Amino acid sequence: MIEVVVVGAGMTKFGENWESSFRQMIADAAIKALVDSGLAGEKIEAIYGGCMASGRFIGQEHIGALIADQLGLNPIPSTRCEAACASGGVALRSGYLAVKSGEHDIVAVGGVEKMTDVSTEDASFALGGAGDQETELFHGATFPSLYALLARRHMIEYGTTEEQMAMVAVKNHKNAANNPNAQFQSEVTLEEVMNSGYVAEPIKVLDCSPVTDGAAAVILCSKEKAEALGMKYIEMAASEQASDTISLAARKSLTELRATMEAARKAYKKAGITQEDVDFAEVHDCFTIAEILAIEDLGFFKKGEGGIATEKGLTALNGKIPINPSGGLKGKGHPVGATGVAQAVEAFNQLMGRAEKRQVKNAEIGLTHNVGGSGATAIVSIFKKAGVKK
Amino acid sequence: MIEVVVVGAGMTKFGENWESSFRQMIADAAIKALVDSGLAGEKIEAIYGGCMASGRFIGQEHIGALIADQLGLNPIPSTRCEAACASGGVALRSGYLAVKSGEHDIVAVGGVEKMTDVSTEDASFALGGAGDQETELFHGATFPSLYALLARRHMIEYGTTEEQMAMVAVKNHKNAANNPNAQFQSEVTLEEVMNSGYVAEPIKVLDCSPVTDGAAAVILCSKEKAEALGMKYIEMAASEQASDTISLAARKSLTELRATMEAARKAYKKAGITQEDVDFAEVHDCFTIAEILAIEDLGFFKKGEGGIATEKGLTALNGKIPINPSGGLKGKGHPVGATGVAQAVEAFNQLMGRAEKRQVKNAEIGLTHNVGGSGATAIVSIFKKAGVKK
Repeated sequence: MIEVVVVGAGMTKFGENWESSFRQMIADAAIKALVDSGLAGEKIEAIYGGCMASGRFIGQEHIGALIADQLGLNPIPSTRCEAACASGGVALRSGYLAVKSGEHDIVAVGGVEKMTDVSTEDASFALGGAGDQETELFHGATFPSLYALLARRHMIEYGTTEEQMAMVAVKNHKNAANNPNAQFQSEVTLEEVMNSGYVAEPIKVLDCSPVTDGAAAVILCSKEKAEALGMKYIEMAASEQASDTISLAARKSLTELRATMEAARKAYKKAGITQEDVDFAEVHDCFTIAEILAIEDLGFFKKGEGGIATEKGLTALNGKIPINPSGGLKGKGHPVGATGVAQAVEAFNQLMGRAEKRQVKNAEIGLTHNVGGSGATAIVSIFKKAGVKK
Repeated sequence: MIEVVVVGAGMTKFGENWESSFRQMIADAAIKALVDSGLAGEKIEAIYGGCMASGRFIGQEHIGALIADQLGLNPIPSTRCEAACASGGVALRSGYLAVKSGEHDIVAVGGVEKMTDVSTEDASFALGGAGDQETELFHGATFPSLYALLARRHMIEYGTTEEQMAMVAVKNHKNAANNPNAQFQSEVTLEEVMNSGYVAEPIKVLDCSPVTDGAAAVILCSKEKAEALGMKYIEMAASEQASDTISLAARKSLTELRATMEAARKAYKKAGITQEDVDFAEVHDCFTIAEILAIEDLGFFKKGEGGIATEKGLTALNGKIPINPSGGLKGKGHPVGATGVAQAVEAFNQLMGRAEKRQVKNAEIGLTHNVGGSGATAIVSIFKKAGVKK
């Protein structure tokens, strides 16, 4: 059984990167990751790139080849993976499997999206492709409206409040303010979130992650090779992926994401841990309700108690289980194809002890959780500090 | 080292499938492959799906989840791979690596594209996303015009003629006439091809593969599992992928596709064979010149001699090395995301000895060759009849 480790990580600043193209962002993130690993580009044997909707955002498909070309890494194989907002997570798992297959020792995994070259309306329509074209989008549903259904159901069943959802935004902005790569490096108050306008009741503007440009990259390696080369690393103890119905209407429950629960169950088993062992998690908070669902579905809190846990500060940077120390999608930004890889970048930085002002104390095990659409794809990966036994 | 085998294959009829949706075609192809394998759906552990531009063709991304959903196979992981017209080949290789990784024993690989729901102009623009948006498409280049540059250069350097290119079309239509799943089940004469109008000189209408709807699927399995279950199978001896510059202008040569040559070199080495051992090949003839380039780049003929070899009938069904017994992209049709998987379906049928009127005699080793764009991605896979030692 080949073990997989992460030996380098890098990302662009997330934001409205009008001065930087899709291609330039790929190069910027990849070069940072390579420099971080200390490896020369020619050591990379394959590339996996996550990207959701470049065809509609910039008229360009064939992103795998474009990435290899842009990095001057031809003729190695380079593959684009797409799973909506989980594209980066799926690329990460594909790279992990490629190393496990024994066909490649060192693999670069990247994620990228350039979303601000089109109008907000066109971006919203492109993002809608993550849902069910026939039963949702065609009838006018947008992503805020789909997550509004999840939020409303959670409020009805468990008494979750708009204030509790707003507190997710307040916390994640606070963390993002300590992340120099975050789109929003500014705090928001509970009043500001509560007073922001409804997008789709009960979801307000400040409950939503933003439209973002950005790229992120990590370098994966077999543990054997990393040790032979004397490299620093963190261990990638599991990367599990699961699927659910693409249409919300077909789900048995609107208060849990079954794909998250399934991927988490398999990931904990694979890594030989329980949720109790996780020291921090980067979860998919595309909307504030999504973080509440995630911390329940990942097992950190009982179903229905995610809102109150947030209110009590249990998910704060110094809380019981710090959630989204990077600022999450809400504060750091959400360039959809890059998000899943950027989560791994944060896990690497935290477990290497170099997350500076947002460092989680004594972090030994981190979890990343990336969701596509309204939950039809979920990837849960678990990372361990080198040498941690549990 | 885990060995990978193919245990079932199926495809829809290729054509203008106006009566069948994207989703229905996925189900039709997958169910045929499953029935062929004799496996129940719940035995499938993961799905890889090739699809190029569903976002622009039908407004739908997140195709992996859609496939799992459509097949009722939630919650298993399901991943979309995109590499333009090589999307199916990349999905095939991703499934092969997933089995090799030891994480999954039985994997379904599919490819699908629904191209006829949009206008020809929109289809052409969507397909253009396979090339370089910045240096090619933005300036008005279309795919016929890019391949016309390759054709013209081959004519100048090696004396290849328009008649020789036309003979590729004549041969592939002849093969397609014996393939009940082909879009064109009719022969064309040399005169008809030569008298068809220029699309981009020297490429004529009948030098081009068509716009097509269709889906294809194969079931991959570890050899150990297939033998334990007593299944029929063919061996997947290699699947190698390579990249080249996305822009033609950046290439050192216009008369060879370096990605094809690199993928083939690695695939022959991996499979422990030479090109002499290959009994037939399904190659990427998106335009007739592409088949001539392919049979040279794969080593079947010397550089510059692909045209004359075609003229001499060496690539006919009863020739020295039968090329595209299925009818190829030209005759069978080219639903871009499905093509690479449909090639594997043909390899399976040929090596199982059930290709009926288009059966290659004594076929023991088959090769499939799938190209993205004008050659920025190539995948070469090698299949062997069970038990063949060489």
